[in-house]
Amino acid sequence: MIGAESLVRTLVAGGADTAFVNPGTSEMHMVQAIDNIAGVRSVLSLFEGVCAGAADGFGRMTGRPAMTLFHLGAGLGNAAANLHNARRGRTPLINIVGEHATYHIKYDAPLTSDIAGIAGPVSNWVHTPSTPGGMAQAGIDVLQAAQSGGGQIATLIVPADCAWGESDGPAESLEIPVLPEVSDDEVKSAAIAIKAGNRVVLLLGAKALGERGIRAAQRIADATGAEVWRETFATKVERGPGLPKVLRLPYFPEQAEEALKGADTMILAGAREPVSFFAYEGKNSELAPANCTVTRLSGPRRDAAAALEALADVLGTPSGQESECPLERPELPTTGDLTDETVGLALGALLPDGAIICDEAITSGVPAAAYTQTAARHTWLSITGGAIGAGIPLSVGAAIACPDRKVIGLIGDGSAMYTIQALWTQAREKLDIVTVIFSNRQYHILQIELMRSGAQNPGPKAMEMMNLNNPEINWVQMAAGLGVDGGRATTAVEFSTLLKRGFDEPGPFLIEAVL
Amino acid sequence: MIGAESLVRTLVAGGADTAFVNPGTSEMHMVQAIDNIAGVRSVLSLFEGVCAGAADGFGRMTGRPAMTLFHLGAGLGNAAANLHNARRGRTPLINIVGEHATYHIKYDAPLTSDIAGIAGPVSNWVHTPSTPGGMAQAGIDVLQAAQSGGGQIATLIVPADCAWGESDGPAESLEIPVLPEVSDDEVKSAAIAIKAGNRVVLLLGAKALGERGIRAAQRIADATGAEVWRETFATKVERGPGLPKVLRLPYFPEQAEEALKGADTMILAGAREPVSFFAYEGKNSELAPANCTVTRLSGPRRDAAAALEALADVLGTPSGQESECPLERPELPTTGDLTDETVGLALGALLPDGAIICDEAITSGVPAAAYTQTAARHTWLSITGGAIGAGIPLSVGAAIACPDRKVIGLIGDGSAMYTIQALWTQAREKLDIVTVIFSNRQYHILQIELMRSGAQNPGPKAMEMMNLNNPEINWVQMAAGLGVDGGRATTAVEFSTLLKRGFDEPGPFLIEAVL
Repeated sequence: MIGAESLVRTLVAGGADTAFVNPGTSEMHMVQAIDNIAGVRSVLSLFEGVCAGAADGFGRMTGRPAMTLFHLGAGLGNAAANLHNARRGRTPLINIVGEHATYHIKYDAPLTSDIAGIAGPVSNWVHTPSTPGGMAQAGIDVLQAAQSGGGQIATLIVPADCAWGESDGPAESLEIPVLPEVSDDEVKSAAIAIKAGNRVVLLLGAKALGERGIRAAQRIADATGAEVWRETFATKVERGPGLPKVLRLPYFPEQAEEALKGADTMILAGAREPVSFFAYEGKNSELAPANCTVTRLSGPRRDAAAALEALADVLGTPSGQESECPLERPELPTTGDLTDETVGLALGALLPDGAIICDEAITSGVPAAAYTQTAARHTWLSITGGAIGAGIPLSVGAAIACPDRKVIGLIGDGSAMYTIQALWTQAREKLDIVTVIFSNRQYHILQIELMRSGAQNPGPKAMEMMNLNNPEINWVQMAAGLGVDGGRATTAVEFSTLLKRGFDEPGPFLIEAVL
Repeated sequence: MIGAESLVRTLVAGGADTAFVNPGTSEMHMVQAIDNIAGVRSVLSLFEGVCAGAADGFGRMTGRPAMTLFHLGAGLGNAAANLHNARRGRTPLINIVGEHATYHIKYDAPLTSDIAGIAGPVSNWVHTPSTPGGMAQAGIDVLQAAQSGGGQIATLIVPADCAWGESDGPAESLEIPVLPEVSDDEVKSAAIAIKAGNRVVLLLGAKALGERGIRAAQRIADATGAEVWRETFATKVERGPGLPKVLRLPYFPEQAEEALKGADTMILAGAREPVSFFAYEGKNSELAPANCTVTRLSGPRRDAAAALEALADVLGTPSGQESECPLERPELPTTGDLTDETVGLALGALLPDGAIICDEAITSGVPAAAYTQTAARHTWLSITGGAIGAGIPLSVGAAIACPDRKVIGLIGDGSAMYTIQALWTQAREKLDIVTVIFSNRQYHILQIELMRSGAQNPGPKAMEMMNLNNPEINWVQMAAGLGVDGGRATTAVEFSTLLKRGFDEPGPFLIEAVL
């Protein structure tokens, strides 16, 4: 058995059975191995950033690592932005990156590059086996690394001669590492802090935003008057009627500071201490009030949901009695202009139960988040690392992970262009995804940020760096070119009609919402 | 004057007057500076890989560095593949990458990453100023670095507070570094080697492939019987009637070895010793015959054209008497199927004088190269580093550098999807580019490579990783969605008609050649 096959068999036995691939010449033996092994599914994308974002979406929804397959340093580089997002979101993810045969590297052929150097900044773990016999153990190690620390990016660089050489076969998989629990003392400290506090904020992040963590936090809130907030860009948060409501920390630092004003006690559960996304001249980076006492119940690398449950058992209401959102849906808008607001209303009115929403709408998505909150049970995935181009690929991975759930991509028109190739994979795999493009024909967030930076009367050159209106992109044509059916809405009723159609029909569908 | 303005003024004074940009929040003061300074042109692209490839095309055509403007590590990562190509092609190129304010980095906000780490593998030089006052000197240093060594990737990481803080104004530019010349002794050694050789191969690369180098090499060939070859993927080669013909070393190692069989003497002028692009099981990495004596007249970091001229003065024919290609064009095909062959014939028949051809056609481009060789004077740009996604962006940069020349992109359908966003910039800037998509609906090179790797009867999963036929991409719809007019050809006459139209009309035009 060649090394490539020993690796893939080891990975599949360890639960990594889905591969998002864009291989090249140096990966041909990996392709053969995937071809030969029935237990692995391979999904082709035409750009590596799509593979990485899809693997992120898959890992978020299943909790299991998908694998990627990339061609040397250039292929890995194309995936770097979405690997950054996955790393920030603590998604378990296995990168398989081909490398020249070990003896060929010294010749510095044109595609030679420092693959480990490219991998480092977007990986938590990087390893290169040096013999075909080392491939199986490398498979065990990469599985362990990806599933340690609450989810990590583990990158395995595979020299071609390690892939094509003879090995001793696959290795047996180990148990998956579990998140360490917090100690009783830490729970007690948090309880003391909450009791002593006046305005108490529970800030949830990472795995605390699953149903268990949210319910436990609400039990604490109901008993103590504490407020339940979450980090701005959550990896995965459960929302909807029958679940407690979690408030989202606003993006802009002034708004976040306003939201936290007067809080004298903050308890971190899975979240890190809140900081401004960017620095602004003369503004603080830290968002908690200066006199606020911050207590870390659990960081993201420990079991924050279990920690919240332990804390709720100490000072919360009984389990099962926590407050929940009622079922409330807005009316479906059938008249008027199409705006962020009417898009949000329509989404709230029609949201299917059990949907997965992948949010990269940037400035346009705020009403959508508000109006879907209590409309139906759903899972919300954000852009965790701020690297634009996550949204459409995330929807691909989520749909492959959860074929029985409707997936919705809320995508800004600026965002959509970074990884538009993902639509082709949606069509190829016949994925049940409705993609809404918020077409405002600008990088609207940058226009806001330019004003915030103190620019007085910006000139045409500055505005041209933020306007997408010359030429206007025809998103329905683009989607059709990539095999995805769609329609264009310029009024509220047109949008509502198209959204209903997208939700009713299986398979991918794109709506260009002209704002 | 803020630091950003002192930097941009310094860069513009040093000749870097064209910026390919995709900025974000941390670059808003750089945007303001570009806005305020009349001497700099900014070109927006909707994906950073397009900016990098366009800057590569601009640098190849002008010999001057363009600057990019990227948003933090994620933006730079998106550009990595085309920066790899530019680095391999020795294009002078200045990256400006925004970074958080110096005091903000320690908070590890979501978009924080190791930017210098990401820059390292795709840069020859990386620097981060630490104060606004250091920005002007950083501008001088990055100009010098980009133009040293025959062309380098020089990356300047700009913390936001260095951009927005007060500086002392711009710095005065220094003279551009010139390539060191080779010594008389090196020229003599090469002359002795040529005289002693039986079958002598001159292998040209880098700047030896300009008109000066080619003419000098032909003088040597005419006098000594030496053959003039070039490296497989040249940064820029001048071709056409009135110029000597340079043979291209084939891509596949067996063919390259066959081409060099019996050569006992090789003289390198701007080229490196030829090696196989990839390693193959049981095959050599080095392509020159084992008993071939290789003499380096000039590496790519010295003035290889001047070295060839010096060598020609020693043993060549008189200057101006070198053999030249005649003007020969094929007939315009007006019947029959559309094939790589008929596309090539039509290109040869219609090629406008002075065109620039950006070649990323991979398996489909061989006849095009053959039939355009003697059709009209033109410049040929290859994908120098093997990182796919170079072609369409290169055409953008070449067209901005040379607005009076017709630019032609020959792009495989697999290649085209990596940086398809470049079409939008073609439309926005009304660039005079004809893009030909060779639509064979497969990664054909990989199907060949899979067979070469020894795969017996590959199964459907392997073939699905290389087939682009499900769904078929409609390139004309894609182009229209991005504002580029185009047409679809399924026969030779349809292609000829569309190509004529594309050449006759100014502005961008795309032809989907259905093969």
